[in-house]
Amino acid sequence: MYDIAVIGSGPAGISAVINLKILGKNFIWFSSRKVSKKVSQAQLVKNYPGLPEISGEGLEKSFLEHCECMGIKPEEKIVTGIYETDGHFTLLAQDNAYEAKAVILCIGTEDKKPLEGEEKFVGRGVSYCATCDGFLYKGKTIAIYCTDKKFEHEIEFLCGLAKTAYVFPMYKNYEIKSANAQIILKQPTRLTGDTKLKKIEYKGGETEADGLFILKGAVSPTVLMRGLSVADGHISAERDCSTNIAGIFAAGDCTGRPYQYAKATGEGNVAAHSAVEYIAGLK
Amino acid sequence: MYDIAVIGSGPAGISAVINLKILGKNFIWFSSRKVSKKVSQAQLVKNYPGLPEISGEGLEKSFLEHCECMGIKPEEKIVTGIYETDGHFTLLAQDNAYEAKAVILCIGTEDKKPLEGEEKFVGRGVSYCATCDGFLYKGKTIAIYCTDKKFEHEIEFLCGLAKTAYVFPMYKNYEIKSANAQIILKQPTRLTGDTKLKKIEYKGGETEADGLFILKGAVSPTVLMRGLSVADGHISAERDCSTNIAGIFAAGDCTGRPYQYAKATGEGNVAAHSAVEYIAGLK
Repeated sequence: MYDIAVIGSGPAGISAVINLKILGKNFIWFSSRKVSKKVSQAQLVKNYPGLPEISGEGLEKSFLEHCECMGIKPEEKIVTGIYETDGHFTLLAQDNAYEAKAVILCIGTEDKKPLEGEEKFVGRGVSYCATCDGFLYKGKTIAIYCTDKKFEHEIEFLCGLAKTAYVFPMYKNYEIKSANAQIILKQPTRLTGDTKLKKIEYKGGETEADGLFILKGAVSPTVLMRGLSVADGHISAERDCSTNIAGIFAAGDCTGRPYQYAKATGEGNVAAHSAVEYIAGLK
Repeated sequence: MYDIAVIGSGPAGISAVINLKILGKNFIWFSSRKVSKKVSQAQLVKNYPGLPEISGEGLEKSFLEHCECMGIKPEEKIVTGIYETDGHFTLLAQDNAYEAKAVILCIGTEDKKPLEGEEKFVGRGVSYCATCDGFLYKGKTIAIYCTDKKFEHEIEFLCGLAKTAYVFPMYKNYEIKSANAQIILKQPTRLTGDTKLKKIEYKGGETEADGLFILKGAVSPTVLMRGLSVADGHISAERDCSTNIAGIFAAGDCTGRPYQYAKATGEGNVAAHSAVEYIAGLK
């Protein structure tokens, strides 16, 4: 059992883990990529105090070096579900389960809007993990909604299992080689079905499938953790970064505007301190 | 009329002014010293993301260089009162008055606890400004409560005006030369009087005086701005750094724990954005 699980490798997550390390906590840090895409793509950051006129790439490098010199390494897995059990939390990340007393969500805002119906069909046709659930769809018809080229190997893996795969690649320069892949260059809009997913609607059409794999960097907050209070697409957090669920904290862009590096590192720091205080109070 | 006045030169104030500069606002930045004493005295700061293992002095240098390279210069004055008039604010700083549409308080936590009775006698015997109010006490008996050696020249100035001066130097290595200065090495505890200040009580004694000069880096929030909501000695602020008074924002240590550089720069950033949004809504 970990003390604290931190999800996300943007400035908020990095600030949280640096503080947890200093505070001597037993933590696990989930990261789906090196640092947030938003950071590394920024041309010029002028308002991160102490590092004037730095490029996004330079800031990413500084953040990573800070973690490295403290011996902090991320677990490169995507967490797809958090469940509360017996006063602690179980996190599902691809094919593994992890336990923690508290969780800090630093999941940003990219790709977070769920599809209409997505929450309803999680575990009933909607999956986020090719390696965990792919075998359930051997010889069947599946759909794959993918937002990032880096997940293309998972598309190929799923196509290898399925009879037919309708693939929605939501990124540039896709290279999907499987012969049974049917590419649809439209944004899926709605998932329908009875108790189980049946149809994927998209702009100008629809297709039936036994399952839909959603391959993106992070799942939306309400899919990740049922019952989490969200307003306008952002996790509702207090000044101490606590949420409506005791033991779940949130920091960075996922808590709302302004989307700023300093705001995110500040909240990561506060969330780490609040989470440590929370677990100290559990005994 | 300035758009925004920022008070305080710690990490929160620095982050606020960097953002206001980028956002093209017409602002004034009040600073009583180079950077916060708390920052420059820190031995080793390990949790300011992007600047691992930096000394407090090094962090101060980085912050100041950031301001310098953006052409941001502080007004080295201590603000002693903020008054709301006709939908804007008037700030008194030593012998000058400044007007601003919004104010960001980044006043830290040091030296902020007011003396018992201090608020009651402001303007009725209690003064924060030797040059503004000293002449009122020519040939009279005054008391001087001073928390920092850097204000010693003001002590000498006041002693030169007064008949007798009871001086409470609350710092090491004081060098007060005036012949009429009576040094009392005790902490003042309470101010009493009827409508006007009459007595200064201290541990083990009391003295009568016509006026008391309080020379410290910043006045306490409730003395600075009447009606400001404070809890446990901290300014009550929302997540967007707004306070109970529209147009007054607060950021950094003055809003509460954790007292952390990243939290302070984060809040300075948020306060700047909130203040800019506030003044945009005034038109």
